[in-house]
Amino acid sequence: MTGGIAFSKGHGTQNDFVVLPDPDAALDLTPARVAALCDRRRGLGADGVLRVVRWAKLAGEPGVGEPVEGVEWFMDYRNGDGSVAEMCGNGLRVFARYLHERGWAPGGGPVGTRNGVLDTTVGQDTVSVDLGTVGIGPASVATTGGARFDGLALDVGNPHLACVIGSDPDALDLTGAPAYDPVVFPHGVNVEFLTPLSGPADGGSIRMRVHERGVGETRACGTGTVAAVVAALRHAGHDAGDVHVTTPGGRLRVTVAAGSPARTGPAVLHGPAVLLATGELDRGWWDAPA
Amino acid sequence: MTGGIAFSKGHGTQNDFVVLPDPDAALDLTPARVAALCDRRRGLGADGVLRVVRWAKLAGEPGVGEPVEGVEWFMDYRNGDGSVAEMCGNGLRVFARYLHERGWAPGGGPVGTRNGVLDTTVGQDTVSVDLGTVGIGPASVATTGGARFDGLALDVGNPHLACVIGSDPDALDLTGAPAYDPVVFPHGVNVEFLTPLSGPADGGSIRMRVHERGVGETRACGTGTVAAVVAALRHAGHDAGDVHVTTPGGRLRVTVAAGSPARTGPAVLHGPAVLLATGELDRGWWDAPA
Repeated sequence: MTGGIAFSKGHGTQNDFVVLPDPDAALDLTPARVAALCDRRRGLGADGVLRVVRWAKLAGEPGVGEPVEGVEWFMDYRNGDGSVAEMCGNGLRVFARYLHERGWAPGGGPVGTRNGVLDTTVGQDTVSVDLGTVGIGPASVATTGGARFDGLALDVGNPHLACVIGSDPDALDLTGAPAYDPVVFPHGVNVEFLTPLSGPADGGSIRMRVHERGVGETRACGTGTVAAVVAALRHAGHDAGDVHVTTPGGRLRVTVAAGSPARTGPAVLHGPAVLLATGELDRGWWDAPA
Repeated sequence: MTGGIAFSKGHGTQNDFVVLPDPDAALDLTPARVAALCDRRRGLGADGVLRVVRWAKLAGEPGVGEPVEGVEWFMDYRNGDGSVAEMCGNGLRVFARYLHERGWAPGGGPVGTRNGVLDTTVGQDTVSVDLGTVGIGPASVATTGGARFDGLALDVGNPHLACVIGSDPDALDLTGAPAYDPVVFPHGVNVEFLTPLSGPADGGSIRMRVHERGVGETRACGTGTVAAVVAALRHAGHDAGDVHVTTPGGRLRVTVAAGSPARTGPAVLHGPAVLLATGELDRGWWDAPA
Protein backbone atom coordinates (compact mmCIF):
# COMPACT_ATOMS: atom_id res chain seq x y z
CA MET A 1 0.00 0.00 0.00
CA THR A 2 2.99 2.34 -0.39
CA GLY A 3 3.47 4.70 -3.29
CA GLY A 4 -0.24 4.60 -3.98
CA ILE A 5 -2.34 6.91 -6.14
CA ALA A 6 -4.07 9.67 -4.15
CA PHE A 7 -7.85 9.95 -4.47
CA SER A 8 -10.94 11.45 -2.87
CA LYS A 9 -14.54 10.30 -3.19
CA GLY A 10 -17.39 12.78 -3.33
CA HIS A 11 -20.89 13.39 -4.60
CA GLY A 12 -23.26 16.19 -5.57
CA THR A 13 -26.90 15.21 -5.03
CA GLN A 14 -25.81 11.57 -5.36
CA ASN A 15 -24.00 12.07 -8.65
CA ASP A 16 -20.74 10.54 -7.44
CA PHE A 17 -17.12 10.90 -8.47
CA VAL A 18 -13.60 9.73 -7.81
CA VAL A 19 -11.34 12.78 -7.63
CA LEU A 20 -7.73 12.19 -8.72
CA PRO A 21 -5.39 15.03 -7.74
CA ASP A 22 -2.74 15.09 -10.48
CA PRO A 23 -1.42 18.68 -10.59
CA ASP A 24 1.51 17.85 -12.84
CA ALA A 25 -0.35 15.50 -15.20
CA ALA A 26 1.84 12.58 -14.13
CA LEU A 27 -0.88 9.91 -14.20
CA ASP A 28 -1.40 7.67 -17.21
CA LEU A 29 -5.20 7.78 -17.00
CA THR A 30 -6.20 5.20 -19.60
CA PRO A 31 -9.87 4.45 -20.39
CA ALA A 32 -9.38 0.97 -18.89
CA ARG A 33 -8.18 2.47 -15.59
CA VAL A 34 -11.09 4.91 -15.48
CA ALA A 35 -13.54 2.08 -16.12
CA ALA A 36 -11.95 -0.14 -13.43
CA LEU A 37 -11.95 2.74 -10.94
CA CYS A 38 -15.64 3.47 -11.59
CA ASP A 39 -16.66 -0.21 -11.51
CA ARG A 40 -18.92 -0.46 -8.46
CA ARG A 41 -17.73 -3.97 -7.52
CA ARG A 42 -14.10 -4.22 -8.58
CA GLY A 43 -13.16 -0.57 -8.05
CA LEU A 44 -14.11 2.38 -5.89
CA GLY A 45 -17.28 2.91 -7.89
CA ALA A 46 -18.46 6.24 -9.32
CA ASP A 47 -20.37 7.87 -12.15
CA GLY A 48 -17.13 9.42 -13.36
CA VAL A 49 -13.57 10.55 -12.64
CA LEU A 50 -12.52 14.15 -11.97
CA ARG A 51 -8.80 14.55 -12.62
CA VAL A 52 -7.47 17.75 -11.01
CA VAL A 53 -4.66 19.01 -13.19
CA ARG A 54 -2.87 22.29 -13.91
CA TRP A 55 -4.18 23.53 -17.24
CA ALA A 56 -0.68 24.39 -18.45
CA LYS A 57 0.35 20.74 -18.04
CA LEU A 58 -2.40 19.48 -20.35
CA ALA A 59 -2.21 22.24 -22.98
CA GLY A 60 -2.35 20.92 -26.51
CA GLU A 61 -4.21 17.70 -25.70
CA PRO A 62 -7.33 17.18 -27.85
CA GLY A 63 -10.26 19.25 -26.60
CA VAL A 64 -8.27 20.89 -23.82
CA GLY A 65 -7.29 24.10 -25.61
CA GLU A 66 -4.76 26.68 -24.49
CA PRO A 67 -4.69 27.85 -20.84
CA VAL A 68 -6.41 31.15 -20.08
CA GLU A 69 -4.48 33.74 -18.06
CA GLY A 70 -5.39 33.50 -14.38
CA VAL A 71 -7.04 30.08 -14.65
CA GLU A 72 -4.76 27.54 -12.99
CA TRP A 73 -6.89 24.39 -12.79
CA PHE A 74 -8.47 22.20 -15.46
CA MET A 75 -11.24 19.66 -14.85
CA ASP A 76 -10.33 16.57 -16.89
CA TYR A 77 -13.68 14.79 -16.66
CA ARG A 78 -14.13 11.16 -17.73
CA ASN A 79 -17.32 9.15 -17.89
CA GLY A 80 -17.53 5.94 -15.90
CA ASP A 81 -17.06 3.89 -19.07
CA GLY A 82 -13.68 5.55 -19.68
CA SER A 83 -14.81 7.92 -22.45
CA VAL A 84 -14.02 11.65 -22.41
CA ALA A 85 -16.96 14.04 -21.83
CA GLU A 86 -17.14 17.78 -22.38
CA MET A 87 -18.90 18.64 -19.20
CA CYS A 88 -20.48 17.49 -15.96
CA GLY A 89 -22.28 20.14 -13.90
CA ASN A 90 -22.43 18.18 -10.63
CA GLY A 91 -18.88 17.03 -11.22
CA LEU A 92 -17.77 20.65 -11.45
CA ARG A 93 -19.40 21.34 -8.09
CA VAL A 94 -17.50 18.43 -6.48
CA PHE A 95 -14.32 19.57 -8.30
CA ALA A 96 -14.68 23.10 -6.87
CA ARG A 97 -15.31 21.66 -3.40
CA TYR A 98 -12.09 19.68 -3.72
CA LEU A 99 -10.00 22.72 -4.77
CA HIS A 100 -11.48 24.63 -1.83
CA GLU A 101 -10.84 21.91 0.79
CA ARG A 102 -7.35 21.32 -0.51
CA GLY A 103 -6.54 25.02 -0.31
CA TRP A 104 -5.81 25.15 -4.04
CA ALA A 105 -8.70 27.56 -4.78
CA PRO A 106 -10.31 28.67 -1.50
CA GLY A 107 -13.83 30.00 -2.03
CA GLY A 108 -13.86 28.85 -5.65
CA GLY A 109 -12.83 30.64 -8.85
CA PRO A 110 -12.65 30.00 -12.59
CA VAL A 111 -11.98 26.44 -13.78
CA GLY A 112 -10.92 25.29 -17.24
CA THR A 113 -13.11 22.60 -18.82
CA ARG A 114 -13.58 21.12 -22.29
CA ASN A 115 -16.53 23.52 -22.44
CA GLY A 116 -14.40 26.60 -21.74
CA VAL A 117 -13.79 28.53 -18.53
CA LEU A 118 -16.57 28.21 -15.93
CA ASP A 119 -16.80 30.11 -12.67
CA THR A 120 -17.35 28.45 -9.29
CA THR A 121 -18.23 29.73 -5.80
CA VAL A 122 -17.79 27.52 -2.74
CA GLY A 123 -19.78 28.25 0.41
CA GLN A 124 -20.28 26.36 3.66
CA ASP A 125 -22.94 23.98 2.34
CA THR A 126 -23.53 25.06 -1.24
CA VAL A 127 -21.30 25.09 -4.29
CA SER A 128 -22.47 27.25 -7.21
CA VAL A 129 -21.20 26.80 -10.74
CA ASP A 130 -21.84 29.09 -13.69
CA LEU A 131 -22.57 26.77 -16.60
CA GLY A 132 -22.76 29.64 -19.10
CA THR A 133 -25.57 30.43 -21.49
CA VAL A 134 -28.02 27.85 -22.81
CA GLY A 135 -28.76 27.55 -26.52
CA ILE A 136 -32.47 27.21 -27.27
CA GLY A 137 -33.31 24.83 -30.10
CA PRO A 138 -36.49 23.60 -31.73
CA ALA A 139 -39.45 21.82 -30.18
CA SER A 140 -39.08 18.04 -30.38
CA VAL A 141 -40.67 14.89 -28.98
CA ALA A 142 -39.53 12.12 -26.61
CA THR A 143 -41.27 8.75 -26.32
CA THR A 144 -40.94 6.53 -23.26
CA GLY A 145 -43.05 3.65 -21.95
CA GLY A 146 -45.27 4.00 -25.01
CA ALA A 147 -46.19 7.66 -24.26
CA ARG A 148 -45.16 10.74 -26.29
CA PHE A 149 -44.07 13.97 -24.62
CA ASP A 150 -43.47 17.39 -26.16
CA GLY A 151 -40.11 18.86 -25.27
CA LEU A 152 -37.61 21.59 -26.07
CA ALA A 153 -34.12 20.99 -27.49
CA LEU A 154 -31.52 22.79 -25.38
CA ASP A 155 -27.73 23.06 -25.58
CA VAL A 156 -26.04 23.25 -22.15
CA GLY A 157 -22.67 22.39 -23.65
CA ASN A 158 -24.21 18.98 -24.22
CA PRO A 159 -27.56 18.18 -25.86
CA HIS A 160 -30.81 18.00 -23.89
CA LEU A 161 -34.47 17.42 -24.60
CA ALA A 162 -36.50 18.83 -21.67
CA CYS A 163 -40.17 17.79 -21.53
CA VAL A 164 -42.67 19.53 -19.28
CA ILE A 165 -45.25 16.82 -18.59
CA GLY A 166 -48.78 16.99 -17.19
CA SER A 167 -48.44 13.76 -15.19
CA ASP A 168 -46.28 12.70 -12.24
CA PRO A 169 -42.64 12.09 -13.30
CA ASP A 170 -42.40 9.38 -10.62
CA ALA A 171 -44.95 7.34 -12.53
CA LEU A 172 -42.88 7.21 -15.76
CA ASP A 173 -41.15 4.08 -16.99
CA LEU A 174 -37.51 5.11 -17.60
CA THR A 175 -36.01 1.63 -17.63
CA GLY A 176 -35.26 1.94 -21.33
CA ALA A 177 -33.79 4.88 -23.25
CA PRO A 178 -36.48 7.31 -24.46
CA ALA A 179 -36.85 7.51 -28.24
CA TYR A 180 -36.03 10.87 -29.90
CA ASP A 181 -35.61 12.43 -33.35
CA PRO A 182 -32.11 11.52 -34.60
CA VAL A 183 -32.21 14.40 -37.09
CA VAL A 184 -32.43 16.91 -34.22
CA PHE A 185 -30.00 14.93 -32.01
CA PRO A 186 -27.48 13.17 -34.24
CA HIS A 187 -25.15 12.45 -31.29
CA GLY A 188 -27.87 11.28 -28.88
CA VAL A 189 -29.49 13.35 -26.16
CA ASN A 190 -30.10 13.57 -22.42
CA VAL A 191 -33.86 13.62 -21.76
CA GLU A 192 -35.55 15.38 -18.82
CA PHE A 193 -39.14 14.90 -17.65
CA LEU A 194 -40.37 17.66 -15.34
CA THR A 195 -43.47 19.13 -13.75
CA PRO A 196 -44.65 22.59 -14.84
CA LEU A 197 -43.25 25.49 -12.81
CA SER A 198 -45.08 25.75 -9.49
CA GLY A 199 -45.07 29.32 -8.12
CA PRO A 200 -43.32 32.43 -9.44
CA ALA A 201 -40.30 32.64 -11.74
CA ASP A 202 -38.28 33.83 -8.77
CA GLY A 203 -38.65 31.23 -6.03
CA GLY A 204 -40.86 28.66 -7.77
CA SER A 205 -40.09 24.95 -7.99
CA ILE A 206 -40.19 21.88 -10.19
CA ARG A 207 -39.66 18.14 -9.77
CA MET A 208 -37.77 16.15 -12.40
CA ARG A 209 -36.20 12.89 -13.53
CA VAL A 210 -33.46 12.47 -16.12
CA HIS A 211 -32.27 9.78 -18.51
CA GLU A 212 -28.61 10.35 -19.38
CA ARG A 213 -27.27 9.47 -22.79
CA GLY A 214 -25.27 6.25 -22.63
CA VAL A 215 -25.88 5.82 -18.90
CA GLY A 216 -29.57 5.38 -18.11
CA GLU A 217 -31.62 7.08 -15.44
CA THR A 218 -29.41 8.86 -12.87
CA ARG A 219 -30.30 10.38 -9.52
CA ALA A 220 -29.21 13.83 -10.69
CA CYS A 221 -27.58 15.50 -13.71
CA GLY A 222 -26.24 19.05 -13.38
CA THR A 223 -26.65 20.21 -16.96
CA GLY A 224 -30.00 18.39 -17.10
CA THR A 225 -31.19 20.35 -14.08
CA VAL A 226 -30.31 23.60 -15.87
CA ALA A 227 -32.08 22.41 -19.03
CA ALA A 228 -35.18 21.50 -17.01
CA VAL A 229 -35.36 24.94 -15.39
CA VAL A 230 -34.94 26.76 -18.73
CA ALA A 231 -37.73 24.64 -20.20
CA ALA A 232 -40.01 25.17 -17.17
CA LEU A 233 -39.48 28.95 -17.23
CA ARG A 234 -40.17 29.24 -20.97
CA HIS A 235 -43.18 26.94 -20.68
CA ALA A 236 -44.56 29.41 -18.09
CA GLY A 237 -43.75 32.42 -20.28
CA HIS A 238 -40.61 33.62 -18.47
CA ASP A 239 -37.12 34.15 -19.87
CA ALA A 240 -35.34 34.38 -16.51
CA GLY A 241 -35.83 33.13 -12.96
CA ASP A 242 -34.57 31.38 -9.84
CA VAL A 243 -36.07 27.92 -9.44
CA HIS A 244 -35.77 25.12 -6.85
CA VAL A 245 -35.45 21.63 -8.31
CA THR A 246 -36.15 18.30 -6.62
CA THR A 247 -34.33 15.37 -8.24
CA PRO A 248 -34.28 11.77 -6.95
CA GLY A 249 -30.80 12.52 -5.52
CA GLY A 250 -31.63 15.74 -3.66
CA ARG A 251 -32.44 19.41 -4.00
CA LEU A 252 -30.74 21.94 -6.29
CA ARG A 253 -31.43 25.50 -7.39
CA VAL A 254 -30.87 27.13 -10.78
CA THR A 255 -30.66 30.84 -11.54
CA VAL A 256 -31.12 31.84 -15.19
CA ALA A 257 -30.52 35.40 -16.47
CA ALA A 258 -32.46 36.88 -19.38
CA GLY A 259 -30.95 36.53 -22.83
CA SER A 260 -32.16 36.45 -26.42
CA PRO A 261 -34.81 34.20 -28.01
CA ALA A 262 -32.00 31.92 -29.20
CA ARG A 263 -29.88 31.85 -26.04
CA THR A 264 -30.42 32.48 -22.32
CA GLY A 265 -28.15 34.61 -20.17
CA PRO A 266 -25.78 32.82 -17.79
CA ALA A 267 -27.26 29.88 -15.85
CA VAL A 268 -25.92 29.08 -12.39
CA LEU A 269 -26.41 25.72 -10.65
CA HIS A 270 -26.44 25.77 -6.83
CA GLY A 271 -26.41 22.75 -4.52
CA PRO A 272 -24.52 20.61 -2.01
CA ALA A 273 -21.20 18.97 -2.84
CA VAL A 274 -19.69 16.54 -0.38
CA LEU A 275 -16.24 14.96 -0.03
CA LEU A 276 -16.57 11.94 2.19
CA ALA A 277 -13.32 10.03 1.90
CA THR A 278 -9.71 10.50 0.97
CA GLY A 279 -6.94 7.96 0.53
CA GLU A 280 -4.64 5.99 -1.73
CA LEU A 281 -5.26 3.41 -4.41
CA ASP A 282 -3.00 0.40 -4.20
CA ARG A 283 -0.22 0.76 -6.78
CA GLY A 284 -0.40 -2.90 -7.78
CA TRP A 285 -4.14 -2.61 -8.41
CA TRP A 286 -3.63 0.60 -10.41
CA ASP A 287 -1.03 -1.14 -12.58
CA ALA A 288 -3.26 -4.17 -13.18
CA PRO A 289 -6.84 -3.69 -11.89
CA ALA A 290 -8.19 -7.02 -10.60
CA MET B 1 -10.30 15.73 6.68
CA THR B 2 -8.39 15.37 9.96
CA GLY B 3 -9.22 12.83 12.64
CA GLY B 4 -11.01 10.72 10.06
CA ILE B 5 -12.14 7.10 10.30
CA ALA B 6 -9.67 4.65 8.74
CA PHE B 7 -10.99 2.31 6.05
CA SER B 8 -9.93 -0.02 3.27
CA LYS B 9 -11.96 -1.13 0.25
CA GLY B 10 -11.66 -4.65 -1.12
CA HIS B 11 -13.47 -7.39 -2.98
CA GLY B 12 -13.50 -11.16 -3.43
CA THR B 13 -14.79 -12.19 -6.88
CA GLN B 14 -16.63 -8.84 -7.00
CA ASN B 15 -18.36 -9.29 -3.67
CA ASP B 16 -17.18 -5.96 -2.24
CA PHE B 17 -16.60 -4.64 1.26
CA VAL B 18 -15.58 -1.64 3.28
CA VAL B 19 -13.08 -2.77 5.92
CA LEU B 20 -13.07 -0.72 9.14
CA PRO B 21 -10.05 -1.40 11.35
CA ASP B 22 -11.31 -0.90 14.90
CA PRO B 23 -9.07 -3.05 17.13
CA ASP B 24 -10.32 -1.53 20.38
CA ALA B 25 -14.03 -1.40 19.44
CA ALA B 26 -14.04 2.38 19.66
CA LEU B 27 -16.39 3.00 16.71
CA ASP B 28 -20.11 3.53 17.22
CA LEU B 29 -21.10 1.49 14.18
CA THR B 30 -24.83 2.15 13.97
CA PRO B 31 -27.03 0.53 11.29
CA ALA B 32 -27.55 4.01 9.77
CA ARG B 33 -23.78 4.51 9.41
CA VAL B 34 -23.33 1.07 7.84
CA ALA B 35 -26.15 1.79 5.38
CA ALA B 36 -24.70 5.23 4.48
CA LEU B 37 -21.22 3.76 4.06
CA CYS B 38 -22.52 1.00 1.76
CA ASP B 39 -24.75 3.36 -0.27
CA ARG B 40 -23.23 3.31 -3.74
CA ARG B 41 -23.98 7.00 -4.43
CA ARG B 42 -23.77 8.78 -1.09
CA GLY B 43 -21.12 6.60 0.51
CA LEU B 44 -18.15 4.47 -0.46
CA GLY B 45 -20.46 1.74 -1.70
CA ALA B 46 -20.20 -1.97 -0.81
CA ASP B 47 -22.15 -5.16 -0.27
CA GLY B 48 -21.22 -5.02 3.42
CA VAL B 49 -18.90 -3.80 6.15
CA LEU B 50 -16.13 -5.84 7.77
CA ARG B 51 -15.24 -4.37 11.15
CA VAL B 52 -11.85 -5.66 12.33
CA VAL B 53 -11.98 -5.84 16.09
CA ARG B 54 -10.22 -7.67 18.91
CA TRP B 55 -12.58 -10.41 20.07
CA ALA B 56 -11.94 -9.59 23.74
CA LYS B 57 -13.22 -6.04 23.17
CA LEU B 58 -16.61 -7.24 21.86
CA ALA B 59 -17.14 -10.13 24.30
CA GLY B 60 -20.67 -10.30 25.67
CA GLU B 61 -22.33 -8.50 22.76
CA PRO B 62 -25.28 -10.44 21.31
CA GLY B 63 -24.15 -13.23 18.98
CA VAL B 64 -20.45 -12.57 19.58
CA GLY B 65 -19.82 -15.13 22.34
CA GLU B 66 -16.77 -15.47 24.53
CA PRO B 67 -13.28 -15.21 22.98
CA VAL B 68 -11.48 -18.47 22.29
CA GLU B 69 -7.91 -18.85 23.54
CA GLY B 70 -5.44 -17.97 20.79
CA VAL B 71 -7.99 -16.26 18.53
CA GLU B 72 -7.31 -12.52 18.63
CA TRP B 73 -9.53 -11.13 15.85
CA PHE B 74 -13.26 -11.09 15.36
CA MET B 75 -15.04 -10.37 12.05
CA ASP B 76 -17.98 -8.13 12.89
CA TYR B 77 -19.83 -8.43 9.57
CA ARG B 78 -22.76 -6.17 8.66
CA ASN B 79 -24.98 -6.35 5.60
CA GLY B 80 -25.20 -3.31 3.36
CA ASP B 81 -28.62 -2.44 4.79
CA GLY B 82 -27.12 -2.15 8.27
CA SER B 83 -28.37 -5.46 9.63
CA VAL B 84 -26.12 -7.96 11.40
CA ALA B 85 -25.35 -11.21 9.56
CA GLU B 86 -23.84 -14.42 10.90
CA MET B 87 -21.47 -15.04 8.08
CA CYS B 88 -20.05 -13.97 4.75
CA GLY B 89 -17.62 -16.37 3.06
CA ASN B 90 -16.15 -13.90 0.57
CA GLY B 91 -16.06 -11.25 3.30
CA LEU B 92 -13.97 -13.58 5.44
CA ARG B 93 -11.50 -13.93 2.57
CA VAL B 94 -11.16 -10.13 2.29
CA PHE B 95 -10.95 -9.91 6.09
CA ALA B 96 -8.08 -12.43 6.16
CA ARG B 97 -6.32 -10.54 3.35
CA TYR B 98 -6.58 -7.36 5.41
CA LEU B 99 -5.12 -8.97 8.57
CA HIS B 100 -2.28 -10.33 6.45
CA GLU B 101 -1.47 -7.04 4.67
CA ARG B 102 -1.68 -5.11 7.90
CA GLY B 103 0.71 -7.53 9.60
CA TRP B 104 -1.92 -8.41 12.22
CA ALA B 105 -2.13 -12.06 11.12
CA PRO B 106 0.49 -12.77 8.44
CA GLY B 107 -0.35 -15.85 6.41
CA GLY B 108 -3.80 -16.11 7.98
CA GLY B 109 -5.02 -17.98 11.06
CA PRO B 110 -8.23 -18.56 13.02
CA VAL B 111 -10.84 -15.77 13.06
CA GLY B 112 -13.82 -15.38 15.37
CA THR B 113 -17.19 -14.95 13.65
CA ARG B 114 -20.85 -15.11 14.69
CA ASN B 115 -20.64 -18.62 13.21
CA GLY B 116 -17.77 -19.68 15.49
CA VAL B 117 -14.03 -19.87 14.85
CA LEU B 118 -13.06 -20.29 11.19
CA ASP B 119 -9.57 -20.88 9.85
CA THR B 120 -7.99 -18.81 7.07
CA THR B 121 -4.87 -19.19 4.92
CA VAL B 122 -3.51 -16.26 2.91
CA GLY B 123 -1.29 -16.90 -0.11
CA GLN B 124 0.07 -14.68 -2.84
CA ASP B 125 -3.09 -14.63 -4.96
CA THR B 126 -5.49 -16.93 -3.14
CA VAL B 127 -7.13 -16.72 0.24
CA SER B 128 -8.66 -19.93 1.58
CA VAL B 129 -11.25 -20.03 4.34
CA ASP B 130 -12.54 -23.09 6.14
CA LEU B 131 -16.29 -22.58 6.40
CA GLY B 132 -16.78 -25.71 8.51
CA THR B 133 -19.14 -28.59 7.85
CA VAL B 134 -22.33 -28.28 5.83
CA GLY B 135 -25.64 -29.61 7.15
CA ILE B 136 -27.59 -31.58 4.54
CA GLY B 137 -31.35 -31.04 4.65
CA PRO B 138 -34.31 -32.31 2.66
CA ALA B 139 -35.00 -32.00 -1.05
CA SER B 140 -37.05 -28.90 -1.84
CA VAL B 141 -38.16 -26.83 -4.85
CA ALA B 142 -37.41 -23.31 -6.12
CA THR B 143 -39.54 -21.50 -8.70
CA THR B 144 -38.21 -18.63 -10.79
CA GLY B 145 -39.40 -17.07 -14.05
CA GLY B 146 -42.33 -19.53 -14.04
CA ALA B 147 -40.09 -22.64 -13.98
CA ARG B 148 -39.70 -25.15 -11.12
CA PHE B 149 -36.32 -26.58 -10.14
CA ASP B 150 -35.51 -29.42 -7.75
CA GLY B 151 -32.93 -28.49 -5.14
CA LEU B 152 -31.30 -29.55 -1.90
CA ALA B 153 -31.61 -27.65 1.40
CA LEU B 154 -28.15 -27.00 2.86
CA ASP B 155 -26.95 -25.26 6.00
CA VAL B 156 -23.61 -23.42 5.56
CA GLY B 157 -24.20 -21.42 8.74
CA ASN B 158 -26.94 -19.74 6.73
CA PRO B 159 -29.73 -21.43 4.76
CA HIS B 160 -29.31 -22.41 1.09
CA LEU B 161 -31.35 -24.13 -1.57
CA ALA B 162 -28.99 -25.39 -4.26
CA CYS B 163 -30.60 -26.50 -7.54
CA VAL B 164 -28.72 -28.53 -10.15
CA ILE B 165 -30.45 -27.55 -13.41
CA GLY B 166 -30.40 -29.13 -16.85
CA SER B 167 -30.46 -25.79 -18.68
CA ASP B 168 -28.03 -22.86 -18.93
CA PRO B 169 -27.99 -20.77 -15.71
CA ASP B 170 -27.25 -17.68 -17.83
CA ALA B 171 -30.69 -18.04 -19.44
CA LEU B 172 -32.60 -17.85 -16.12
CA ASP B 173 -34.68 -14.85 -15.11
CA LEU B 174 -33.43 -13.91 -11.62
CA THR B 175 -34.83 -10.37 -11.52
CA GLY B 176 -37.32 -11.38 -8.85
CA ALA B 177 -36.78 -13.51 -5.74
CA PRO B 178 -37.32 -17.24 -6.41
CA ALA B 179 -40.28 -18.78 -4.60
CA TYR B 180 -39.53 -21.50 -2.01
CA ASP B 181 -41.25 -23.57 0.66
CA PRO B 182 -41.58 -21.38 3.80
CA VAL B 183 -42.05 -24.49 5.97
CA VAL B 184 -38.52 -25.67 5.04
CA PHE B 185 -37.06 -22.12 5.12
CA PRO B 186 -38.95 -20.08 7.75
CA HIS B 187 -36.25 -17.34 7.72
CA GLY B 188 -35.87 -17.13 3.94
CA VAL B 189 -33.15 -18.76 1.87
CA ASN B 190 -30.31 -18.08 -0.55
CA VAL B 191 -30.98 -19.92 -3.82
CA GLU B 192 -28.28 -21.29 -6.16
CA PHE B 193 -28.78 -22.48 -9.75
CA LEU B 194 -25.91 -24.56 -11.07
CA THR B 195 -24.86 -26.86 -13.86
CA PRO B 196 -24.25 -30.56 -13.11
CA LEU B 197 -20.66 -31.44 -12.18
CA SER B 198 -18.51 -31.59 -15.30
CA GLY B 199 -15.53 -33.94 -14.90
CA PRO B 200 -14.35 -35.88 -11.85
CA ALA B 201 -15.09 -35.15 -8.18
CA ASP B 202 -11.46 -34.06 -7.83
CA GLY B 203 -10.82 -31.36 -10.42
CA GLY B 204 -14.26 -31.06 -12.02
CA SER B 205 -16.15 -27.83 -12.49
CA ILE B 206 -19.56 -26.15 -12.35
CA ARG B 207 -21.07 -22.80 -13.36
CA MET B 208 -23.57 -21.06 -11.09
CA ARG B 209 -25.70 -18.03 -10.29
CA VAL B 210 -27.06 -17.06 -6.90
CA HIS B 211 -29.98 -15.06 -5.55
CA GLU B 212 -29.17 -13.81 -2.05
CA ARG B 213 -31.90 -13.47 0.56
CA GLY B 214 -32.83 -9.81 1.02
CA VAL B 215 -30.33 -8.63 -1.62
CA GLY B 216 -31.15 -10.03 -5.06
CA GLU B 217 -28.79 -11.60 -7.54
CA THR B 218 -25.14 -11.02 -6.64
CA ARG B 219 -21.98 -11.62 -8.64
CA ALA B 220 -20.71 -14.12 -6.07
CA CYS B 221 -21.67 -15.51 -2.67
CA GLY B 222 -19.07 -17.46 -0.66
CA THR B 223 -21.39 -19.73 1.32
CA GLY B 224 -23.55 -20.12 -1.80
CA THR B 225 -20.52 -21.36 -3.71
CA VAL B 226 -19.90 -24.00 -1.05
CA ALA B 227 -23.58 -25.01 -1.10
CA ALA B 228 -23.48 -25.32 -4.89
CA VAL B 229 -20.43 -27.60 -4.80
CA VAL B 230 -21.94 -29.84 -2.11
CA ALA B 231 -25.13 -30.15 -4.19
CA ALA B 232 -23.20 -30.83 -7.42
CA LEU B 233 -21.07 -33.52 -5.77
CA ARG B 234 -24.05 -35.30 -4.20
CA HIS B 235 -26.03 -35.03 -7.45
CA ALA B 236 -23.13 -36.88 -9.12
CA GLY B 237 -22.97 -39.52 -6.37
CA HIS B 238 -19.90 -38.19 -4.50
CA ASP B 239 -19.60 -37.19 -0.85
CA ALA B 240 -16.27 -35.35 -1.20
CA GLY B 241 -14.33 -33.51 -3.88
CA ASP B 242 -12.42 -30.49 -5.13
CA VAL B 243 -14.43 -28.45 -7.63
CA HIS B 244 -13.79 -25.28 -9.67
CA VAL B 245 -16.69 -22.84 -9.74
CA THR B 246 -17.37 -20.06 -12.26
CA THR B 247 -19.62 -17.30 -10.91
CA PRO B 248 -20.51 -14.05 -12.69
CA GLY B 249 -17.86 -12.32 -10.51
CA GLY B 250 -14.98 -14.71 -11.13
CA ARG B 251 -13.55 -18.13 -10.41
CA LEU B 252 -13.43 -19.91 -7.05
CA ARG B 253 -12.61 -23.41 -5.86
CA VAL B 254 -14.22 -25.46 -3.08
CA THR B 255 -12.78 -28.52 -1.33
CA VAL B 256 -15.25 -30.68 0.59
CA ALA B 257 -14.17 -33.54 2.86
CA ALA B 258 -16.27 -36.68 3.38
CA GLY B 259 -18.67 -36.67 6.33
CA SER B 260 -21.92 -38.38 7.28
CA PRO B 261 -25.21 -38.53 5.35
CA ALA B 262 -26.44 -35.60 7.46
CA ARG B 263 -23.34 -33.41 7.39
CA THR B 264 -20.25 -33.06 5.18
CA GLY B 265 -16.71 -32.83 6.45
CA PRO B 266 -15.04 -29.40 6.46
CA ALA B 267 -15.56 -27.29 3.33
CA VAL B 268 -12.85 -24.87 2.27
CA LEU B 269 -13.43 -21.94 -0.12
CA HIS B 270 -10.43 -20.79 -2.20
CA GLY B 271 -10.22 -17.67 -4.36
CA PRO B 272 -8.78 -14.21 -4.92
CA ALA B 273 -9.23 -11.39 -2.40
CA VAL B 274 -8.10 -7.90 -3.32
CA LEU B 275 -7.56 -4.72 -1.30
CA LEU B 276 -7.53 -1.81 -3.71
CA ALA B 277 -7.73 1.34 -1.62
CA THR B 278 -7.04 2.60 1.86
CA GLY B 279 -7.83 5.94 3.45
CA GLU B 280 -9.92 7.98 5.85
CA LEU B 281 -13.60 8.84 5.99
CA ASP B 282 -14.30 12.48 6.69
CA ARG B 283 -15.23 12.86 10.37
CA GLY B 284 -18.03 15.34 9.59
CA TRP B 285 -19.58 12.91 7.11
CA TRP B 286 -19.25 10.04 9.60
CA ASP B 287 -21.04 12.09 12.25
CA ALA B 288 -23.85 13.09 9.88
CA PRO B 289 -23.74 11.21 6.54
CA ALA B 290 -24.94 13.52 3.75
